[in-house]
Amino acid sequence: MPAAFSSPLSRSASVPCPTADRYLAVRRRSLELAAPLTDEDCQVQSMPDASPTKWHLAHITWFFETFVLERFETAFKPFDASFRVLFNSYYEGIGERHPRPQRGLITRPTLDEVKRYRAEVDQRICAVLAAHPDDAELHELVTLGLHHEQQHQELLLTDIKHALSSNPAARAYAQHWPLRAVQPLPMQWLACEGGLFDLGHDVTLDGPFCFDNETPRHKTYTAAFELASRPVSNGEYLGFIHDGGYRRPELWLSMGWDWVRSEARNAPLYWRREPGSDAAAWRHHTLQGVVDIDPHTPVCHLSYFEADAYARWADARLPTEAEWEWAARHFAAQPSARDNLADRGAYHPLPAADSQTHGPLQMFGDVWEWTQSSYSAYPGYKPLPGAVGEYNGKFMCQQYVLRGGSCATPGGHVRASYRNFFPPDAQWQFSGMRLAR
Amino acid sequence: MPAAFSSPLSRSASVPCPTADRYLAVRRRSLELAAPLTDEDCQVQSMPDASPTKWHLAHITWFFETFVLERFETAFKPFDASFRVLFNSYYEGIGERHPRPQRGLITRPTLDEVKRYRAEVDQRICAVLAAHPDDAELHELVTLGLHHEQQHQELLLTDIKHALSSNPAARAYAQHWPLRAVQPLPMQWLACEGGLFDLGHDVTLDGPFCFDNETPRHKTYTAAFELASRPVSNGEYLGFIHDGGYRRPELWLSMGWDWVRSEARNAPLYWRREPGSDAAAWRHHTLQGVVDIDPHTPVCHLSYFEADAYARWADARLPTEAEWEWAARHFAAQPSARDNLADRGAYHPLPAADSQTHGPLQMFGDVWEWTQSSYSAYPGYKPLPGAVGEYNGKFMCQQYVLRGGSCATPGGHVRASYRNFFPPDAQWQFSGMRLAR
Amino acid sequence: MPAAFSSPLSRSASVPCPTADRYLAVRRRSLELAAPLTDEDCQVQSMPDASPTKWHLAHITWFFETFVLERFETAFKPFDASFRVLFNSYYEGIGERHPRPQRGLITRPTLDEVKRYRAEVDQRICAVLAAHPDDAELHELVTLGLHHEQQHQELLLTDIKHALSSNPAARAYAQHWPLRAVQPLPMQWLACEGGLFDLGHDVTLDGPFCFDNETPRHKTYTAAFELASRPVSNGEYLGFIHDGGYRRPELWLSMGWDWVRSEARNAPLYWRREPGSDAAAWRHHTLQGVVDIDPHTPVCHLSYFEADAYARWADARLPTEAEWEWAARHFAAQPSARDNLADRGAYHPLPAADSQTHGPLQMFGDVWEWTQSSYSAYPGYKPLPGAVGEYNGKFMCQQYVLRGGSCATPGGHVRASYRNFFPPDAQWQFSGMRLAR
Amino acid sequence: MPAAFSSPLSRSASVPCPTADRYLAVRRRSLELAAPLTDEDCQVQSMPDASPTKWHLAHITWFFETFVLERFETAFKPFDASFRVLFNSYYEGIGERHPRPQRGLITRPTLDEVKRYRAEVDQRICAVLAAHPDDAELHELVTLGLHHEQQHQELLLTDIKHALSSNPAARAYAQHWPLRAVQPLPMQWLACEGGLFDLGHDVTLDGPFCFDNETPRHKTYTAAFELASRPVSNGEYLGFIHDGGYRRPELWLSMGWDWVRSEARNAPLYWRREPGSDAAAWRHHTLQGVVDIDPHTPVCHLSYFEADAYARWADARLPTEAEWEWAARHFAAQPSARDNLADRGAYHPLPAADSQTHGPLQMFGDVWEWTQSSYSAYPGYKPLPGAVGEYNGKFMCQQYVLRGGSCATPGGHVRASYRNFFPPDAQWQFSGMRLAR
Repeated sequence: MPAAFSSPLSRSASVPCPTADRYLAVRRRSLELAAPLTDEDCQVQSMPDASPTKWHLAHITWFFETFVLERFETAFKPFDASFRVLFNSYYEGIGERHPRPQRGLITRPTLDEVKRYRAEVDQRICAVLAAHPDDAELHELVTLGLHHEQQHQELLLTDIKHALSSNPAARAYAQHWPLRAVQPLPMQWLACEGGLFDLGHDVTLDGPFCFDNETPRHKTYTAAFELASRPVSNGEYLGFIHDGGYRRPELWLSMGWDWVRSEARNAPLYWRREPGSDAAAWRHHTLQGVVDIDPHTPVCHLSYFEADAYARWADARLPTEAEWEWAARHFAAQPSARDNLADRGAYHPLPAADSQTHGPLQMFGDVWEWTQSSYSAYPGYKPLPGAVGEYNGKFMCQQYVLRGGSCATPGGHVRASYRNFFPPDAQWQFSGMRLAR
Repeated sequence: MPAAFSSPLSRSASVPCPTADRYLAVRRRSLELAAPLTDEDCQVQSMPDASPTKWHLAHITWFFETFVLERFETAFKPFDASFRVLFNSYYEGIGERHPRPQRGLITRPTLDEVKRYRAEVDQRICAVLAAHPDDAELHELVTLGLHHEQQHQELLLTDIKHALSSNPAARAYAQHWPLRAVQPLPMQWLACEGGLFDLGHDVTLDGPFCFDNETPRHKTYTAAFELASRPVSNGEYLGFIHDGGYRRPELWLSMGWDWVRSEARNAPLYWRREPGSDAAAWRHHTLQGVVDIDPHTPVCHLSYFEADAYARWADARLPTEAEWEWAARHFAAQPSARDNLADRGAYHPLPAADSQTHGPLQMFGDVWEWTQSSYSAYPGYKPLPGAVGEYNGKFMCQQYVLRGGSCATPGGHVRASYRNFFPPDAQWQFSGMRLAR
Repeated sequence: MPAAFSSPLSRSASVPCPTADRYLAVRRRSLELAAPLTDEDCQVQSMPDASPTKWHLAHITWFFETFVLERFETAFKPFDASFRVLFNSYYEGIGERHPRPQRGLITRPTLDEVKRYRAEVDQRICAVLAAHPDDAELHELVTLGLHHEQQHQELLLTDIKHALSSNPAARAYAQHWPLRAVQPLPMQWLACEGGLFDLGHDVTLDGPFCFDNETPRHKTYTAAFELASRPVSNGEYLGFIHDGGYRRPELWLSMGWDWVRSEARNAPLYWRREPGSDAAAWRHHTLQGVVDIDPHTPVCHLSYFEADAYARWADARLPTEAEWEWAARHFAAQPSARDNLADRGAYHPLPAADSQTHGPLQMFGDVWEWTQSSYSAYPGYKPLPGAVGEYNGKFMCQQYVLRGGSCATPGGHVRASYRNFFPPDAQWQFSGMRLAR
Repeated sequence: MPAAFSSPLSRSASVPCPTADRYLAVRRRSLELAAPLTDEDCQVQSMPDASPTKWHLAHITWFFETFVLERFETAFKPFDASFRVLFNSYYEGIGERHPRPQRGLITRPTLDEVKRYRAEVDQRICAVLAAHPDDAELHELVTLGLHHEQQHQELLLTDIKHALSSNPAARAYAQHWPLRAVQPLPMQWLACEGGLFDLGHDVTLDGPFCFDNETPRHKTYTAAFELASRPVSNGEYLGFIHDGGYRRPELWLSMGWDWVRSEARNAPLYWRREPGSDAAAWRHHTLQGVVDIDPHTPVCHLSYFEADAYARWADARLPTEAEWEWAARHFAAQPSARDNLADRGAYHPLPAADSQTHGPLQMFGDVWEWTQSSYSAYPGYKPLPGAVGEYNGKFMCQQYVLRGGSCATPGGHVRASYRNFFPPDAQWQFSGMRLAR
């Protein structure tokens, strides 16, 4: 990590505080992720759905300032009063907010000022933690803020990937390309008997933290089904393309077919056919630059519409989120160090490589897996009280659940009960699929 | 019914054919519904979601011509070859179709020609039925076509209501206003224990016909809940309005709040505050003209967003469709003659009036009840083969399920397993809500 | 003219009144133009720029009611108070108006009611004229109203042509196709010396009536130039198309090139290339149905952008309106009975046929000729006082002047000083061009 | 000028070359104008009409590279081949170009790289000039490029003013506020007799350089008129606002009134009424921050629509461009050192202060003056050959001419024959008005 990014403080080791340790590690990681970028890269917003890197760095700091410092500092004074509006994402309870599509116009504060903002808030959070070592609510709020920051670390990567793709002279975010040749693994169907079971966060299995949308744990029923042993690969998806998949309305949802035609889609986001070469010569934009497409790597940057159409073409379907979670529990799938691809500098899914596992491969990491489940409240769901409760519940409409994390998800962030969600036309996340039937 | 609308044929009574009898009755009803309208009323399309009356009359005839005559007539010849495109709604398998937002520009055929089209197709359908008295598939297809026609009878009413509302000099569709003063019934909570049960169409309870989306009947689980004894009333909804319901973001889904602001909503569709009068002086456009709002009548023309926000304000929620159907089965609720409000010339919901029933009131008729369930496939769902299978499945995205029928639903059309579905911003149906918790 | 359209009154011949005679003739002509159409044809509006036939028939009646009856009747009472809003086109001084894009939704009044409205206003106007035989202002206002009505007669034809073109099953407005084979006339350049001269309306040359935008007559200067002896023909325009005219940006204004690309234009409005046939096989939609394109007929339905690009391709330019009027005066060109193509039932331009004339042919009738002059006020221009003055001046922005009338212009309506004007992307008028250099 | 911005070369004084001297001075000035901005300020594009500072700095360099180096260097090699597309503004003849609304997404090259690009092109241009001291065409092209660069210097200021206005935490571009209290000068009407005269560029009066749109000099005629002695002031414009100017349709062009309503305008761009204070408490955003409005300063940031409406309210009109130029010639008005407000660091118009001049004041500098003349070709106009000819002619549509330069126009750039042009809704230039009648 370059010196310029070093945090202005080092915690005294004399008082052990796991929250503060974790706080400093997560906060440092955000700056590491921004390090390869110029000030100008950090400024731009390439579409309304995406945010500038600088905005991410400021917003996740605003979260700590607003929800932690404002409450736990006795003589709270904001770092800069205008930040309350500039870096509020969508919290109506906090007041006015800068229009989302204009985040890329905020040239002041500069990136350097945002880093000073981060450094000051870091110092003050650590002071608050030290002053209240036993305040459970404080430690819970800080932990929530850290998981929030990790979500933005993933968005930072997907957003900058999109921004660099808009730039004809785009250079790679990272130099190292992680792919090595592997022995392709055929997809297999795993039998799952289903039944009545408990869905949702389980402290024992998933660890103490979860978002409110993973609760309450509740009984649900699912019939027997089969689940694919690994995600759909680029090579398999090319079969769909070459079979006219993007030209056959019977394979698509009505809304998906409208999307294909109005957006003139013929391949996943970031794929481009090389001019003049043969039909199969697809390449794609990655965080490592434009490279050939590897047939054994999980396909990603699919919309829900594309995942659903592929499944229909393959005479299968997407799993429900209950089926996905049943399988994760049944096969005792857990995120592993292998799955922290971003932390390992991979920034791209990798091919399935382990032929020894009897259960499903790559349930975690690599690609978020679209489920057929619309994102909705679990029975008995209650949002957190206050403005911080605007985190999940108010988005439970017109989105689909994705499970399992991706190559951009920070280590320690995902778990079997984790519910990600995006609208069905979203493609800029590392979103892929696993078949069911 | 005026002579001009009488069907050109009367079936010989010598051969009993219930399908043909029902066919003629349903077909006649469509013309009756158009009878109060001028040729010009039947021409217009007031928004892309709505269709002209003339188009409805032609499209439902096209359905019989395309899916029945073309298959069962040995020497099939289309009434007019251009109708195949003009009156195809969305069947990709049939080929080209006229753009939906331009249905109002089809001045030829005229309404008179469309009536001749109907008369000829009627004659030919009856001939085909007489020639194949025992062809189960034929009778099933005709029955499907009649249920399809009944759906369009309801749309004809909701669409013309919208068109007349766009006309400053709008006159009433009907003269008779059905409302009589009633004793208001307080809402009560009915206890429902839920559990593991079978969801979906049941021949014994629901009759032989259903749409494919009501199948297959399958096991599901729902926890115990409480259901409101009747739909939310206008008076109750006014409480929400007067409590600032349309100005409080914390009551709304994020997408709903965007909708409120971009559409500048402050009341249900068709409500208008009388200028100069006091705050409560709301009136609304109905098919009987502009009238005062009755506090005891079920509120209708709500979007899903409004229903969801009201429920949150009322410290309750919308039921799932499984809960709704569980309650309908448990309390043995069935559509009755009372519920066929359109057939009785009411064209508007009526206040709950029966205080003797121990179960829920107005489960059928009056207003479609928004559920919190996103419209999706039942486990194991299979669309019908061929183009006729484009009826339901391809719309299973970004819509919510409504249950129970409305005042505009024809008699005999609805049942406990019936699933209607609309996008969450749709308001022009007779859509209301019943609370759960 | 069918009986249904006959005016309810016949003027007593005992009191000669040329204004009333002309009034009745012009008013009758509007109904004749609507006679071939069904009630449904008269209802539709195929784009915001166009209006329904029924609306035209009502609006021109509203003009007489509002600007004449309201002022000259002692006990004025409106035919229907709601018409003041429904049929106000754009007169802010009159008050509210129905939104232009929603004119096609006004199903009530019906066409029959509009005809009754016309009949009553006709009777009352004749009564007012009889009561005030010498009121110059009254006769001037009625005359203005008649010229206004003639403008709408032309729009009625161009608007219904557009509406019928939107209907896949469109039938012809008229049956008779006027074209006979002619000897093609080569285009020649006519020398025009120009100089200092008076531009604008001249009572002696142009007759007593003109619109305010033709005044005041004022001195202007134009250098020597050459003018084409006839308009550009379809055959000549095909040369431009086949030379890649629609694919070469250097021929277009920047805004024109954006228009070509965003609208995907490759030919004039209403032209369609027959599928499967050779490159030159263009046909076009006319008021007589879809017919072959005649190479010797003046090209029409051009936007200003297309006329300007064609001129650049032909190494020429469009004339200014001063040049056009200079030439009309110099060569003593006058509208003749030959030019009243609509009155003669032609409804389409005809090929130039007279090889004897030494001056320019077809200066009047056939096609409106785009000039390069932006529509602006003549020096010293003053609009009429009051709301009736909102007729011309407020549109003097972002439009271009066209001269000479078209095949749809009623007889007696056009003159050498007449200034028509449309935005540069307008195509649905019978607009063509004559070259200058 | 900070050291970081110094040009990497200093010309050897041994060979006098006025073109090279001027080249270096103009080029240096562009960097001076960017000096107060951060890298992030230079990156953003706040609306499609505006461009990032960095893009301006690169584009004006691209112009020299493409039109001069590529032609006059024997072994031309581009600095970076991708710049040909990235920094092409609108030259179709040069090939592909980056979409205008996405100029703000070009994060690479960085500002530092653009400065290196500038430095290298500067060196190579000087070398070419030294190698061809007598090539008239070369010196003409370089001179054209310098005038082009000066136009972008003005746009750089107006564009960054807009970008800073979009930033809630906007800081001032410049610190020094130039305004001193002055004695207000009443407006007077100057008599102008007009007549037949020569319009357009005159080498003797205007100097050797002009843009092609100022040619050919040609005879024109204008009647006698009166011209205001100075531009309309803020105080006078406040009279219009307080008299309901933005609420009275009769004062506006139809298109202007639509603009007022759809944009909800009630004051010039950048004006904001202070909340809670009295009606007259307007302040405005300037390049020096938000300040009070001075009543004696010329009003600016007016659209054509606003200028036209104000003139109508004041019972006057806008001058034609012929009238403006006639007056400039007649009164021998010339740009002076006083008028180079940007060069003097003012960046804002100043009040009229000189009561001794008998002719019009502030014809140059302060504010561009809207004329009523649509921007069109002078008779006999010919664009330059080749791609460089795409400079002016293709924009001669739907724009209005402004005359006289503004406070942001570099010294030496404007002259009496100079024609600037913008669409009628453009406000972000320093555009004001002078009345005529």
